[in-house]
Amino acid sequence: MIVVMRRDAKEQDIEHMIEQVQSLGLKPHVLRGTERTVIAAIGDERAAASVGVLESGPGVDEVLPVLAPYKLASVETKSEKTVIRVGSLTIGNGRLGVIAGPCSVESEEQIVSTARAIKASGATALRGGAFKPRTSPYSFQGLKEKGLQMLAIAREETGLAVVTEVVAAEDIELVAEYADVLQIGARNMQNYRLLEAVGRSPCPVLLKRGPSATVDELLLAAEYILDGGNQQVMLCERGIRTFEAHTRFTLPLATVPYLQGKTHLPIVVDPSHGTGHTPLVPAMCRAAIAAGADGLILEVHPNPEKALSDGYQSLTFAQFEETMKGCRRVADAMDVKI
Amino acid sequence: MIVVMRRDAKEQDIEHMIEQVQSLGLKPHVLRGTERTVIAAIGDERAAASVGVLESGPGVDEVLPVLAPYKLASVETKSEKTVIRVGSLTIGNGRLGVIAGPCSVESEEQIVSTARAIKASGATALRGGAFKPRTSPYSFQGLKEKGLQMLAIAREETGLAVVTEVVAAEDIELVAEYADVLQIGARNMQNYRLLEAVGRSPCPVLLKRGPSATVDELLLAAEYILDGGNQQVMLCERGIRTFEAHTRFTLPLATVPYLQGKTHLPIVVDPSHGTGHTPLVPAMCRAAIAAGADGLILEVHPNPEKALSDGYQSLTFAQFEETMKGCRRVADAMDVKI
Amino acid sequence: MIVVMRRDAKEQDIEHMIEQVQSLGLKPHVLRGTERTVIAAIGDERAAASVGVLESGPGVDEVLPVLAPYKLASVETKSEKTVIRVGSLTIGNGRLGVIAGPCSVESEEQIVSTARAIKASGATALRGGAFKPRTSPYSFQGLKEKGLQMLAIAREETGLAVVTEVVAAEDIELVAEYADVLQIGARNMQNYRLLEAVGRSPCPVLLKRGPSATVDELLLAAEYILDGGNQQVMLCERGIRTFEAHTRFTLPLATVPYLQGKTHLPIVVDPSHGTGHTPLVPAMCRAAIAAGADGLILEVHPNPEKALSDGYQSLTFAQFEETMKGCRRVADAMDVKI
Amino acid sequence: MIVVMRRDAKEQDIEHMIEQVQSLGLKPHVLRGTERTVIAAIGDERAAASVGVLESGPGVDEVLPVLAPYKLASVETKSEKTVIRVGSLTIGNGRLGVIAGPCSVESEEQIVSTARAIKASGATALRGGAFKPRTSPYSFQGLKEKGLQMLAIAREETGLAVVTEVVAAEDIELVAEYADVLQIGARNMQNYRLLEAVGRSPCPVLLKRGPSATVDELLLAAEYILDGGNQQVMLCERGIRTFEAHTRFTLPLATVPYLQGKTHLPIVVDPSHGTGHTPLVPAMCRAAIAAGADGLILEVHPNPEKALSDGYQSLTFAQFEETMKGCRRVADAMDVKI
Repeated sequence: MIVVMRRDAKEQDIEHMIEQVQSLGLKPHVLRGTERTVIAAIGDERAAASVGVLESGPGVDEVLPVLAPYKLASVETKSEKTVIRVGSLTIGNGRLGVIAGPCSVESEEQIVSTARAIKASGATALRGGAFKPRTSPYSFQGLKEKGLQMLAIAREETGLAVVTEVVAAEDIELVAEYADVLQIGARNMQNYRLLEAVGRSPCPVLLKRGPSATVDELLLAAEYILDGGNQQVMLCERGIRTFEAHTRFTLPLATVPYLQGKTHLPIVVDPSHGTGHTPLVPAMCRAAIAAGADGLILEVHPNPEKALSDGYQSLTFAQFEETMKGCRRVADAMDVKI
Repeated sequence: MIVVMRRDAKEQDIEHMIEQVQSLGLKPHVLRGTERTVIAAIGDERAAASVGVLESGPGVDEVLPVLAPYKLASVETKSEKTVIRVGSLTIGNGRLGVIAGPCSVESEEQIVSTARAIKASGATALRGGAFKPRTSPYSFQGLKEKGLQMLAIAREETGLAVVTEVVAAEDIELVAEYADVLQIGARNMQNYRLLEAVGRSPCPVLLKRGPSATVDELLLAAEYILDGGNQQVMLCERGIRTFEAHTRFTLPLATVPYLQGKTHLPIVVDPSHGTGHTPLVPAMCRAAIAAGADGLILEVHPNPEKALSDGYQSLTFAQFEETMKGCRRVADAMDVKI
Repeated sequence: MIVVMRRDAKEQDIEHMIEQVQSLGLKPHVLRGTERTVIAAIGDERAAASVGVLESGPGVDEVLPVLAPYKLASVETKSEKTVIRVGSLTIGNGRLGVIAGPCSVESEEQIVSTARAIKASGATALRGGAFKPRTSPYSFQGLKEKGLQMLAIAREETGLAVVTEVVAAEDIELVAEYADVLQIGARNMQNYRLLEAVGRSPCPVLLKRGPSATVDELLLAAEYILDGGNQQVMLCERGIRTFEAHTRFTLPLATVPYLQGKTHLPIVVDPSHGTGHTPLVPAMCRAAIAAGADGLILEVHPNPEKALSDGYQSLTFAQFEETMKGCRRVADAMDVKI
Repeated sequence: MIVVMRRDAKEQDIEHMIEQVQSLGLKPHVLRGTERTVIAAIGDERAAASVGVLESGPGVDEVLPVLAPYKLASVETKSEKTVIRVGSLTIGNGRLGVIAGPCSVESEEQIVSTARAIKASGATALRGGAFKPRTSPYSFQGLKEKGLQMLAIAREETGLAVVTEVVAAEDIELVAEYADVLQIGARNMQNYRLLEAVGRSPCPVLLKRGPSATVDELLLAAEYILDGGNQQVMLCERGIRTFEAHTRFTLPLATVPYLQGKTHLPIVVDPSHGTGHTPLVPAMCRAAIAAGADGLILEVHPNPEKALSDGYQSLTFAQFEETMKGCRRVADAMDVKI
């Protein structure tokens, strides 16, 4: 950590800060420049409970952290890439996972027909929400356990691994009975009680980035799960909130190579939420693969116009079939297999 | 709701959309313009489960909602302003509430001395976190029930109402035993299970805006609580995530008059999180009052440099005393009483 | 245009608004809903000087535009895609243009060696700045006419078309003497005097999106050029300003398919400025192609560590060679030729 | 400047970087931590042409600047606050300037009646655009010289100083003949040719922040003007682009105290553009004053519904009169005089 003193900092401010740095268990190193004095604090600043507080010290201009705040998620801790293997789904090690299905499970017929269609087109796992976090209390909230049972039937029929969201710690046991992968939604990315709970589960986790979370915050959310003992974590970029209004969210694909340089965890991209408009989804699926993503998660529905949620961003079976054709060609160009 | 058709929409697309609108229980009204056809759908579009899906229809360019998605929070439903009265704290009806205290409760001595100091300077309620949602699993996570007990002692000593955060539905009963107001933090603004649970509590709620939440999403989060039966809800603007890097968040004070035009719920402003830097807090406290805020919530600590969290944005007792002087003058100019 | 009245709008407010709509030359159509009245204004709202003013009328809640504000740039005006052909550069019609070169022209040797290297690797045009708009007055401001002469020498040596920035109307004649394509930089996207002036030039224009411009604003900036008579316009997505701090800008590739649905103008992507970090550039080049971009513009320098500008985002010759290999494979998968 | 090396940086990378730092004229100071090596570069990093390039060096993780990039605008260079005095307008030294008037000058009658009305309500200068930069080429572009003449008439009639925008270097002489203050609009904040030109003018300048400009970029734009010899510069916060859609821009008032801590230049706030909606303007005027702003600039029109531009954010004469009453009370509370 680097403490930059103000130009008008007094000698006693500098001495005070030296003591503060020492009291955090770090070793201060004072550099007197032509205009300002800088104090470099050597040591593991993450162990220091709250280095940010130094900023409130007298004469301090700013505090610049040097070490990334996460450890277990870091490529510096584990250089070998994490590979997720669960049933039909493999993510990493040259295999691109494609998780497809409706936003919400609506009926057995809907989920089973979707599972069959996406499998025929090449998907490697099935998604579908049974517990739905919805912006409005007046929107469809999901079929809950009945929805989970329908997902299990679809898995039995097709062999596809099931990815579904869990929204509360008390539901984990129930959801894990039916699901192969527990999804943590964007709204719950910083629901730490939930993160701690899935950290104790043996089930792999797909952790979605919150729409205003920094990548450091995403990695720290993953850190909660890893720290709990669960090493099977996939990160999911699903778009951030910006001033762009022609897409529901802005999908910043540069996070894919950036994260791959920082973490060993696989990176999945969600072009459905990342754009919020069906016509933009196929191009962004291909772009995600070309950017090096380890997997895709996207919304497919037998009849998007009648979907109980997210119809505006769902592909029909025919659109998904067509999208997969384009994806396979780009995957070939990237030497990965779907 | 207004459905704007594409210029190249076919007659059958228009007819299809008319049927869709009808199937949602709305009355279609077709307007054929010089360039495009527009279908106005008359009726309560909020009752229609999922109007957004119309966007995926053939020939549709975009769907523009006309009605706000919230009802109970709307000034159109209840024009009389909601006033919160709990112990020493009154918010609304010409009274400005000032909720102050440390980010985290750290010890009995810390919280009691803070309560005394802020009361002497004019605060009307005490804040302090016992359950702390922290970005990093390695940060101080709060004293939990012990912290709540210390808050209760501080209340007993000073008579100040206690505002404290609750992070999970299963903790509500425990927290409500000690607290006068339940705070829902920004990270949990869309934790619907938690919102539903505090909606069933008799305790007033301070609901913080998530850093990427739109004001409609904030009002819909409040709607979950109101819909559960709890009418004692305060909204809190605590800053949004933008590209501005010299402040931790960007505090958009125009949301104060905007929200006051849309909802009957009182609006509290948090200049500590909204700026993230102590030197900016006093000016933003005054600005919030001048913008018409119904209350302030801010961080005060006996020794910010030693705080276990958020020291960089906490005021010392002396700074808080000084800040309150400026606030009182602006409050007088606004004809409100602290 | 749709005028949504407030729920408490009076009958006289509605009548006033009907008159206002008529005074703008539009035909009002009143729809009385269960909760609100909506007035649809039929006609060409773009001809109406300033429809936004209706928002200030009594009883008005909001005004929703229906027609896009641009005409000449619209795919509804000209459905055939615009193809740019100038010297070695073809953009559109199945050909992907790759414009590469240093941020600034620094010396004849630098620019000629770069032109040779990028041509050998497959670039189809040379970029290089002679007039440099720089954030700080203390930064290198470009070699001006000398730089243009060096670009002309590089073109002579390699046959590559030259793309270079023009920053003021009074320089256009001079720059156009040497350049094949005039670049309008992001900072000048709304410098209308400059847009009008390049609109009168016979030289093709590459128009960069400003970092906070909406796509409508970008298309309206293009409209200034098209309206001036110059039809040879390429749009360039170079990243927007968001809260993401690990990249200098956020590159929203979904604008590529979005814009292609709205305009006939070709879309070029700039992964160098769009990320601001060399290691992220190759992945984003591939992703841009997979998203369907018509061209790329990127920074290549013989020795980025010694570059007078933008070294942190420039590729070396070897990195560019490697990047092009990946790009060619993805271009093949997209059935386009570089 | 601090160069943070990657954990896996080799000894030769560190030595290479030491040489690079020396070649920039800075003195390297190597700090070997437990996990990483950090190289502090002592000296005036602003003099070093392009320190950013170090980021592309082998083994480098990131480069953290220590010194602010601006000099002349810095409070460290000139600690005494700059006061602007021109005709009726004084900004700074306990005086709050209030610049009001229409977006565009439309007729002599319009501008003269507005000048009289705002003067009667207490404004201290008149604004009005004669050269209008408009997003669409089809919008009203201003009366140009005729508009300037009308402004001069209004000044003669009322004695109010005139603030008006200049959009191109070639117009400065003409505009300065009529204007007391040259306004640089948000779209031209990084039009450096224009900044250099007003830097050579004897006329005071009001420099508006671009909607995606950082405060450092704003201060560097001011630096261009100061470096040209013109010391009479006011900065104007007029709102930034964020995801907030209920206001046209987001007005981040914390920039007022922040900038006052960094620069000696006075800070003016524009609540009209900063909110984009008339009903929000009065509250944000008061908030700006309470935040410590040195001046306000806002839009007033005799009949906003008929304004040729920006009617949706203009106050009527009566609304302005009312707004000023509130402003005066808050100004009194802040011990400043309007």
